[in-house]
Amino acid sequence: MSTAPSIVAVDWGTSSFRLWVMSRDGTVLAEHRSNEGMTEVAALGFETVLENHLTALSVPGHLPVVICGMAGSRQGWVEAGYIDTPADVTTIGKSATIVPHAARSVIILPGLAVRSEGEPDVMRGEETQLLGAYLDMPGGARYCMPGTHSKWVSMDGATVTGFETFMTGELFAAISAKTILVHSTGGEGGVDANDPAFLTGVRDGWAQAAKITHHLFSIRAGQLLHSHGIDENRARLSGLLIGVELAGAGVRGDEQIGLVASGAMQRLYHAALSECGVKVRDINADAAVRRGLVEAWHGFSNTNGDVTHP
Amino acid sequence: MSTAPSIVAVDWGTSSFRLWVMSRDGTVLAEHRSNEGMTEVAALGFETVLENHLTALSVPGHLPVVICGMAGSRQGWVEAGYIDTPADVTTIGKSATIVPHAARSVIILPGLAVRSEGEPDVMRGEETQLLGAYLDMPGGARYCMPGTHSKWVSMDGATVTGFETFMTGELFAAISAKTILVHSTGGEGGVDANDPAFLTGVRDGWAQAAKITHHLFSIRAGQLLHSHGIDENRARLSGLLIGVELAGAGVRGDEQIGLVASGAMQRLYHAALSECGVKVRDINADAAVRRGLVEAWHGFSNTNGDVTHP
Repeated sequence: MSTAPSIVAVDWGTSSFRLWVMSRDGTVLAEHRSNEGMTEVAALGFETVLENHLTALSVPGHLPVVICGMAGSRQGWVEAGYIDTPADVTTIGKSATIVPHAARSVIILPGLAVRSEGEPDVMRGEETQLLGAYLDMPGGARYCMPGTHSKWVSMDGATVTGFETFMTGELFAAISAKTILVHSTGGEGGVDANDPAFLTGVRDGWAQAAKITHHLFSIRAGQLLHSHGIDENRARLSGLLIGVELAGAGVRGDEQIGLVASGAMQRLYHAALSECGVKVRDINADAAVRRGLVEAWHGFSNTNGDVTHP
Repeated sequence: MSTAPSIVAVDWGTSSFRLWVMSRDGTVLAEHRSNEGMTEVAALGFETVLENHLTALSVPGHLPVVICGMAGSRQGWVEAGYIDTPADVTTIGKSATIVPHAARSVIILPGLAVRSEGEPDVMRGEETQLLGAYLDMPGGARYCMPGTHSKWVSMDGATVTGFETFMTGELFAAISAKTILVHSTGGEGGVDANDPAFLTGVRDGWAQAAKITHHLFSIRAGQLLHSHGIDENRARLSGLLIGVELAGAGVRGDEQIGLVASGAMQRLYHAALSECGVKVRDINADAAVRRGLVEAWHGFSNTNGDVTHP
């Protein structure tokens, strides 16, 4: 009976909601996705939104729910705190916060924090992906988790020794939509990882990171003087920002990096890292977060007893 | 009669309009400022807006008007083209474009362009400030003209050998208002050039430019973990972006730079450049653009004859 529904795993971010009904061994039995991220949920309330999804999927009331992501932030459902680095990523389940007064058993996983006064940092949701990625590739020393706020994580065994966040995805959105570059890069089209303008941007951003705010304006000038097109400009903008991220993360051509990503993000970062000579090991981000959620649940129930069967 | 009104000088930018009635020797006889930049003017039309100001100041109809700035762009009044670098800044008046069919004599000065395929760049308005700054400080090799789009100009005598634009001011606005940092840096307060957070930001941005997109996120983390306040965060954000600009411009501690700026911008950049060990020579930006406009007018009328007295 390994395929009996055993747990509900939820990745609840700022702008997205993903729920999987899973068996104890990690098989996906059902899935729901929506845009009901944090910002959408404020009106209805977290419990109502969650129960609506569970009802739609006819999930039995005794199944426990394990959640990672911004639902555990101060503005979320219940604040789930942070574990300070250095942190053993396999312990996040033990430190989960139980949602009080919920109709069913619900726990929210903690984030991780670097409490350095000079360069503080936080993650929330990625620690669970990281747990899954670590189980998938235990020997890795560094993991890149690209996105709105890309995370670069250094590990020693299961211990997160430190991490750094780069605002790459959010800067791409803000710069392409809210600055003069809207005229040069506007539109909603995706960026092709094989576009020469993307790879040139990666190289320029990586090799000349200090010139980033000049290279950005140069995109506008290139449109005025050389009639460079929108797609080319978007590709260069994306490449420049990813290149600066790789420079900031100090990637070296001789290292192997675990790239925890899916879809277009995976293609762009794989191409960018390869362009810089890095050996990339791809780890599917969706599979990693699911694996991390199930593993964290086991960690929680081993410590707290199986609260679903009192 | 050196104080007889002789010329109307106008700096017409994307978001501001500044007009001075001046004597032939550069004395300011009257002044008008408004927010009728390019974007405001589209409905009324450039000539109507200009004539309204001139009527309000009772400017005689025979006085010529010399304009610099975005009014000469493709989306402006009449496109005034670019002079390619290397460019003798004292020749911008000779290359002015006459506005056809205007009720009075109106000329618009050209911008400057770097036509490099790899790093193209443009300026429009700053070339006129630069002419004034050059006349004020002819021996300078480098000029910094901070703002929404900061310009760094290299000169050899009167010749602009090259320049680079940095999107510093616009990035500050977009990042503080349109990203997650709105929660940490929001509000309209100014930044104090003596704030330790500003100067620390300058040093971090300058010395570790490649980490800029990480340092930006760190501001958010610092608020979450250490309760850093809005003013401190805004100061750090401003410092980081200016520091990266100084790194990108490759400032060295042993050089002298002509800082063409006014008001808060002058205080911030003077402090930032000094923090990096640069010898700063301050050149008032308002005075520079007026001087440049009058000088350019002389250059135009010496070449074309005095079109105001046919």
